[in-house]
Amino acid sequence: MAGETVITVVGNLTEDPELRFTPSGAAVANFTVASTPRIFDRQTNEWKDGDALFLRCSIWRQAAENVAESLGRGTRVIVQGRLKQRSYETAQGEKRTVVECEVEEIGPSLKYATTKVSKTSRSGSGGGSTGGYGSGGGGGQSRPSGGGDDPWASATPAAAPAGGGGGGGYSEEPPF
Amino acid sequence: MAGETVITVVGNLTEDPELRFTPSGAAVANFTVASTPRIFDRQTNEWKDGDALFLRCSIWRQAAENVAESLGRGTRVIVQGRLKQRSYETAQGEKRTVVECEVEEIGPSLKYATTKVSKTSRSGSGGGSTGGYGSGGGGGQSRPSGGGDDPWASATPAAAPAGGGGGGGYSEEPPF
Amino acid sequence: MAGETVITVVGNLTEDPELRFTPSGAAVANFTVASTPRIFDRQTNEWKDGDALFLRCSIWRQAAENVAESLGRGTRVIVQGRLKQRSYETAQGEKRTVVECEVEEIGPSLKYATTKVSKTSRSGSGGGSTGGYGSGGGGGQSRPSGGGDDPWASATPAAAPAGGGGGGGYSEEPPF
Amino acid sequence: MAGETVITVVGNLTEDPELRFTPSGAAVANFTVASTPRIFDRQTNEWKDGDALFLRCSIWRQAAENVAESLGRGTRVIVQGRLKQRSYETAQGEKRTVVECEVEEIGPSLKYATTKVSKTSRSGSGGGSTGGYGSGGGGGQSRPSGGGDDPWASATPAAAPAGGGGGGGYSEEPPF
Repeated sequence: MAGETVITVVGNLTEDPELRFTPSGAAVANFTVASTPRIFDRQTNEWKDGDALFLRCSIWRQAAENVAESLGRGTRVIVQGRLKQRSYETAQGEKRTVVECEVEEIGPSLKYATTKVSKTSRSGSGGGSTGGYGSGGGGGQSRPSGGGDDPWASATPAAAPAGGGGGGGYSEEPPF
Repeated sequence: MAGETVITVVGNLTEDPELRFTPSGAAVANFTVASTPRIFDRQTNEWKDGDALFLRCSIWRQAAENVAESLGRGTRVIVQGRLKQRSYETAQGEKRTVVECEVEEIGPSLKYATTKVSKTSRSGSGGGSTGGYGSGGGGGQSRPSGGGDDPWASATPAAAPAGGGGGGGYSEEPPF
Repeated sequence: MAGETVITVVGNLTEDPELRFTPSGAAVANFTVASTPRIFDRQTNEWKDGDALFLRCSIWRQAAENVAESLGRGTRVIVQGRLKQRSYETAQGEKRTVVECEVEEIGPSLKYATTKVSKTSRSGSGGGSTGGYGSGGGGGQSRPSGGGDDPWASATPAAAPAGGGGGGGYSEEPPF
Repeated sequence: MAGETVITVVGNLTEDPELRFTPSGAAVANFTVASTPRIFDRQTNEWKDGDALFLRCSIWRQAAENVAESLGRGTRVIVQGRLKQRSYETAQGEKRTVVECEVEEIGPSLKYATTKVSKTSRSGSGGGSTGGYGSGGGGGQSRPSGGGDDPWASATPAAAPAGGGGGGGYSEEPPF
């Protein structure tokens, strides 16, 4: 895709993520991130909280399961995704439009926490990626299978590269 | 600060982070993130790796220690920070300029991994922040102490809010 | 401010900007940017339009007047600003929340257009800024007066630096 | 493309853009943007300039010609592009690596200036785009031809959609 509106948000989950599955078996997780800016008050010479932004987020496939397993209410996260608009009708027949974030990458912030990272084993990831920077066995940051049950496959044909921006297998050395 | 060049990078650590301490005891961690774009090749109808971007990063204080404890060579991370330029002289007396990232937030990506998150206990965080969204005891996402040994304190007086964008203690409900 | 959710949007104005003035005389311009991603369809091997994102934007002070004078319906623009949430009540007493962009910088895109740029003369900008990179007389990219009628002055005390990220008067040479 | 490192920079051109043409006739413009953050000094209670970031930029095709025609030394601009690394050898045989910005969109900032926008006429843009939001005749924000002399055509096959994120012809009304 090109010309998308990409956004990075830092904030706290307002609730545990909700994990659901489409009829075809694809996972999707939904959650809300509350992002609170800090404002410096010249009068008091102190920083204080500004108004929070609450952004509804969704994430798909294996990453959705990873989110549901790893994050909970209150976790501070970094989210990168595409800003999207969704229209719907209320039970009263009113049209509403909401702005949401289709998450591309998410992780727990290390500002006030430590984490223990475990790579997920992926079926069908074999071949191709040699995991040059991988920290050990198991294929390192190898590509996901990009399986056949992608719920968006027909809607956005080339929008979800199998392994987008992914992983290991660098053939070059860092240039310094 | 205002008018900074903020950047979000997703990629893999090329090596384990290096943790050092200033004479005054402040922690700083350095590491390099290799970010590889994916390019769609119309001829072959396949995605393939583009040229990697190697970005040198630094992070300070408690977060530096958290990074050193949590991340290693090959870990896929999401980084948000300020793009900065640093000039130096080589041993041969040549002037060089490098572009680096002063990290504000970083976390391990959940695209191909799960994590177990542990909040760091912070001295001096008492009071004020009630951790409304916190997942349990221990003060939730309370503010750090912002202690007196900030190595940048004199250089950029108001640039490092104690608890920038931080944490819990929301007094409002999400508006939906 | 710190911890804000900064966003960059590229798109077209859906209508001419609306310019209004607060009772104290401060200008504010409102407009909507329609941003349409391009999706590559593997089946047809062609790019096509995705769903547009319509983002309501506001900009203040001198820049608001510049926007009203320079941009019109259909103009393609680049916008950088802070994502904010605003709650209000409808005439029927229903609560609604909208996401909007508080614009920090905006300009017409040069992708499909050329522009003729004219610096705005600003009262009170005298002194201080020598406009090192300025292309001629008139103070170059000197700071605005930051006058006393800032409608946000009390609400966000240090959030609006007079001349944020501004201008000329560089004392250094580019390091290459 | 996917997984790119996208950046938005606001700053001033250090010199007039340099416009060149490839042997095949494609235009490319090079220029440097100096971006200066503003730092709030708590001691003096004043904002002051921080260290400037100088970012080398390049832009291709019609937009390059538009840049050369529209912008000059000192112009304040908003730039959105991809951060890239380029390695080269000096005359002394030393390896060097520089970070540059491959510009996707650029425009003059309206913070301290007004502009007069003129759409560029494009050969081969006929058909398809009806310019729904266009402000008049002439095809509005219609797509460029994406001509056959694209210097990157073979290198990054699907990276440059003809009309990326482009323009007019919206079939929907804004949803509010």
